[in-house]
Amino acid sequence: MKPRISFITLAVADLDRSLRFYRDGLGLPTEGIIGTEFGPEAQVVFIKMNAGLTLALWPRTSLIKQMHVPGGPPNPSEFALAHNVGSREEVDALFAQVRQAGATITREPHEPPWGGYAGYFQDPDGHVWEIAFMPGFKPED
Amino acid sequence: MKPRISFITLAVADLDRSLRFYRDGLGLPTEGIIGTEFGPEAQVVFIKMNAGLTLALWPRTSLIKQMHVPGGPPNPSEFALAHNVGSREEVDALFAQVRQAGATITREPHEPPWGGYAGYFQDPDGHVWEIAFMPGFKPED
Repeated sequence: MKPRISFITLAVADLDRSLRFYRDGLGLPTEGIIGTEFGPEAQVVFIKMNAGLTLALWPRTSLIKQMHVPGGPPNPSEFALAHNVGSREEVDALFAQVRQAGATITREPHEPPWGGYAGYFQDPDGHVWEIAFMPGFKPED
Repeated sequence: MKPRISFITLAVADLDRSLRFYRDGLGLPTEGIIGTEFGPEAQVVFIKMNAGLTLALWPRTSLIKQMHVPGGPPNPSEFALAHNVGSREEVDALFAQVRQAGATITREPHEPPWGGYAGYFQDPDGHVWEIAFMPGFKPED
């Protein structure tokens, strides 16, 4: 297996709400909801991220049906996505933006034991994002 | 916010078990468990993926404590990671490998309504991966 992740798909309860959060709130570029021509289960939002990586927003009901996995109560401790930036100031600026976008802040930016400056927030479905500045780590690395 | 994901962190119950699965079973390159010098909570496995993207394996207890999110029963319907390849044959070959690595297959490779060929499996913590061939989509895109 080559070290490559092509898509990270987040299960969402309300595709319109998630589109508004990621496109209008966070300002990420997307064509909006696509896939309608393949049926209601194919409705999805794609957001191109790093080279070769797309963030997908997909209704949880579709994910469960397609992947043959059980559902269950939301669990925000399954995974986290990190967005690294180049300075503490950028962390603070992005936190102001995500707060404005209606995100739930779980931990304000602080200095973790391993250095740097980082904070955490949740999207409308409880999925956790980290905004981090790690000295010596270029965001593009 | 720039369209960039720097880390995808998966919560794991047993770091050694996950390291064996991803390094020895799937064959992904990693230095193994690092971060010990910053205390037990900093122990982590990093796997460099696409440009700018690192897959991190982190004990769930550390994630909960650091990110200030509640835990709960595992829920495999929160998200999925997709690894796209260039042909149906590669999908089948990778499924043979992940089966050998002890993955739980939730859905064998099949033809989804939107075309292509894809199947799903779970890692030792229940996190879902898709191996997919999508005609017209280059894995590097």
